[in-house]
Amino acid sequence: MKDSDNTEAEEHQEDAYGLDRRRVAAILFAVERRDRETLLALMDPLHAADIADLLEQINAYDRGRLIRLYDREFDGEILSELDESIREEVMQVLNPAVLAEAVRDLDSDDVVDLVEDLDASEQAAILDVLEDADRVAVEQSLSYPENSAGRLMQREVVMAPQHWTVGAAIDHMRSADELPEQFYHVVLVDPRLKPVGNVTLGCIMAAKRDVALADISEETFQVIPVGQDEEDVAYAFNQYHLISAPVVDEDGRLVGVITIDDAMAVLDEEHEEDILRLAGVGEGSLSDRVRDTTKQRFPWLAVNLVTAILAALVISLFENTIAAFVALAALMPIVASMGGNAGTQSLTVAVRALATRDLTGANLWRVIRREVLVGLVNGLIFAVMMGAVGVFWFGSWSLGGVIAAAMVINLVVAGLAGIAIPVILDRIGVDPALASGAFVTTVTDVVGFFAFLGLAAVFLI
Amino acid sequence: MKDSDNTEAEEHQEDAYGLDRRRVAAILFAVERRDRETLLALMDPLHAADIADLLEQINAYDRGRLIRLYDREFDGEILSELDESIREEVMQVLNPAVLAEAVRDLDSDDVVDLVEDLDASEQAAILDVLEDADRVAVEQSLSYPENSAGRLMQREVVMAPQHWTVGAAIDHMRSADELPEQFYHVVLVDPRLKPVGNVTLGCIMAAKRDVALADISEETFQVIPVGQDEEDVAYAFNQYHLISAPVVDEDGRLVGVITIDDAMAVLDEEHEEDILRLAGVGEGSLSDRVRDTTKQRFPWLAVNLVTAILAALVISLFENTIAAFVALAALMPIVASMGGNAGTQSLTVAVRALATRDLTGANLWRVIRREVLVGLVNGLIFAVMMGAVGVFWFGSWSLGGVIAAAMVINLVVAGLAGIAIPVILDRIGVDPALASGAFVTTVTDVVGFFAFLGLAAVFLI
Repeated sequence: MKDSDNTEAEEHQEDAYGLDRRRVAAILFAVERRDRETLLALMDPLHAADIADLLEQINAYDRGRLIRLYDREFDGEILSELDESIREEVMQVLNPAVLAEAVRDLDSDDVVDLVEDLDASEQAAILDVLEDADRVAVEQSLSYPENSAGRLMQREVVMAPQHWTVGAAIDHMRSADELPEQFYHVVLVDPRLKPVGNVTLGCIMAAKRDVALADISEETFQVIPVGQDEEDVAYAFNQYHLISAPVVDEDGRLVGVITIDDAMAVLDEEHEEDILRLAGVGEGSLSDRVRDTTKQRFPWLAVNLVTAILAALVISLFENTIAAFVALAALMPIVASMGGNAGTQSLTVAVRALATRDLTGANLWRVIRREVLVGLVNGLIFAVMMGAVGVFWFGSWSLGGVIAAAMVINLVVAGLAGIAIPVILDRIGVDPALASGAFVTTVTDVVGFFAFLGLAAVFLI
Repeated sequence: MKDSDNTEAEEHQEDAYGLDRRRVAAILFAVERRDRETLLALMDPLHAADIADLLEQINAYDRGRLIRLYDREFDGEILSELDESIREEVMQVLNPAVLAEAVRDLDSDDVVDLVEDLDASEQAAILDVLEDADRVAVEQSLSYPENSAGRLMQREVVMAPQHWTVGAAIDHMRSADELPEQFYHVVLVDPRLKPVGNVTLGCIMAAKRDVALADISEETFQVIPVGQDEEDVAYAFNQYHLISAPVVDEDGRLVGVITIDDAMAVLDEEHEEDILRLAGVGEGSLSDRVRDTTKQRFPWLAVNLVTAILAALVISLFENTIAAFVALAALMPIVASMGGNAGTQSLTVAVRALATRDLTGANLWRVIRREVLVGLVNGLIFAVMMGAVGVFWFGSWSLGGVIAAAMVINLVVAGLAGIAIPVILDRIGVDPALASGAFVTTVTDVVGFFAFLGLAAVFLI
């Protein structure tokens, strides 16, 4: 037993985190045999986050059996680590007593995360099992807008009057009945509870007892308004290397604190959203069922169908040209496809730069100029290459010239559209990651086919 | 002066972080007039990260003038926040004495970040200005592989023997000559310097003096091997909600510690890399010049040209069919384009799931089955729609049938290729974000044109 455990641990190490296949297989085998003891032994070394991953990766039938066999061992943290798509299913499978116990174990911010997407009756059922103080805290958090700092923060804060010394702070903390599970700073506040500084516990440890806290507070001090969007919160943590930051209400009074691990999770989610939206995939995860996935993918494909039909209409304008010179049919998708790709490159860089706030009024015109120039240079290079293909493949200098000219036109337009469309969408308040792709490929398809076939109609026929 | 400053501060607040346009304009105006005093007043409230952003957003000429006017105020931290693309340029503009001072101010891990991409002679010039102890630390870090935990860690660690009590740890820390600027844990070590646990400073504050440190050490304890890839480090921090983690050498001995802010920066870079690679854009940033950007974009466009020519060859096989029924030329890009989009959806979900380790041996077959089914269902829906378009637009039931059948075939193939290609690339050690797009669109283009025109050749002519 010991030996096989070691090998498993080593393999685990090699793959650096994540679940290893053999353990998953062993767990499923234990579930199959209803062997609770082996199951518990196998699950024991796993972190709640890994158990959540495991539940996401197996099918619904195995999931149900595993949860029922695991029973009382089911920890609240597993619930908060679970992907939303299967969290509700898991909560329905769980024994109500186990669920109540699991929820009671959680911090108030995790309970908020757990219940915020449930409908009212399910929400009430969960909140009912909480102690009064916790329930009030959760309800208060739920009163802040979704995706705001208020939903993200923990309410337990360690604070000190701004005139205190290191010694006073240490004595206060060491005599406190209860300190938050996670805290890295003491927040300095003025008499009206307005935060005025942040002192790390490390600095408190390093300083002499009679040093004023105000003298060792951190240089970088950012206060987060409770209504601020969580995306901005994550940006501030990443930009200013914050570890924790005080959250204030409209009057500037301290109401909670956000720690970097929550900000990191938000950053990760925002990235996921951007990357999926750029590909035209709605919110979703691997554990979603066929029906949900089909629904998520459908809208973008429908938009693309409209784009494609528009392009087909452009082509059909030139049916006579194509009938006269059928080689055009083979060559025309090349120009459109190159434009689509170049446009996607520009728009991705633009969307990313907007998200990281690197694209601003100060450099917009320079970036536009650069994108157009890059389109022009690459357009010229590929024009020469495709022109040569046209000449050698079809032996026609005019065909080579037409495809070369269309290539340059479409790559310049692609650069321009790739930067202008996301910027415009951003200015009018639409997420550029969501809609830019459809607009840009429409432009490059229409311009690509129109330029190529139009020039062909003029110069070849 | 006061008033205008306030308004600016408020505006700044509204836009939630980042630079505001008016301040950038005022700074450039001060540079124009060579008004050092105003420049310093305007720059003073800015965080080093914001100053770095400012330098990235203005053009090279203004950048040089600003740096020369700012002169001795130039802080080392600005250098480490700067994007690599302009960092070298800035270092060349800086007065050598200012540069030396700036570098001496930095922590050793920041110096490593600064010099790791310089060539040997430039690297030596920078290292020469460091004090001996610092230089040795930097050189040691540089001896670890690029992008490894060794490059990321700070060498200053607060540790305690595993048998110590809370009181002993507090006395030790409070009497230490120097503690690291940033630390959140005391690492427990055994007599051979092997880390065996992590105790947060918060827990030490909350516990009584005679409690053993081992009894209040964190439940989740992850040790990072010094050679581990930084991507895996970031994954571990995000997955297990770590704040700091000890780094060990091959013998398991403690050599440093990595903190979450560095892991968050890596996570952010990895995401940037993924999102840009998926769009066929190499490493790069907005501040790159036209020449660099053109070079970054060229390879993917060249690959796409090959794909497009391949598709053109497929089309040219059917020139007779198209000549006989020229409407096919207008309709054929629709099937290819829908396949390309559906394939991109699948591959993006797959690439993301591979990055977050949500796609494993345990659920691979289920995910493949799901992608194919989603392709089939969406394929059938769009087949009906496009079939109807074929019938009404061209009045031909057989044309409608051909386009419908080609649509179903291509969307099923797109789902299959979209999941299989990234998984295969990942298994053979190629970054799926980098190359999947080219392969998947090749497949969907070729299959799309071949299925549509091939069916048309059989059933329409």
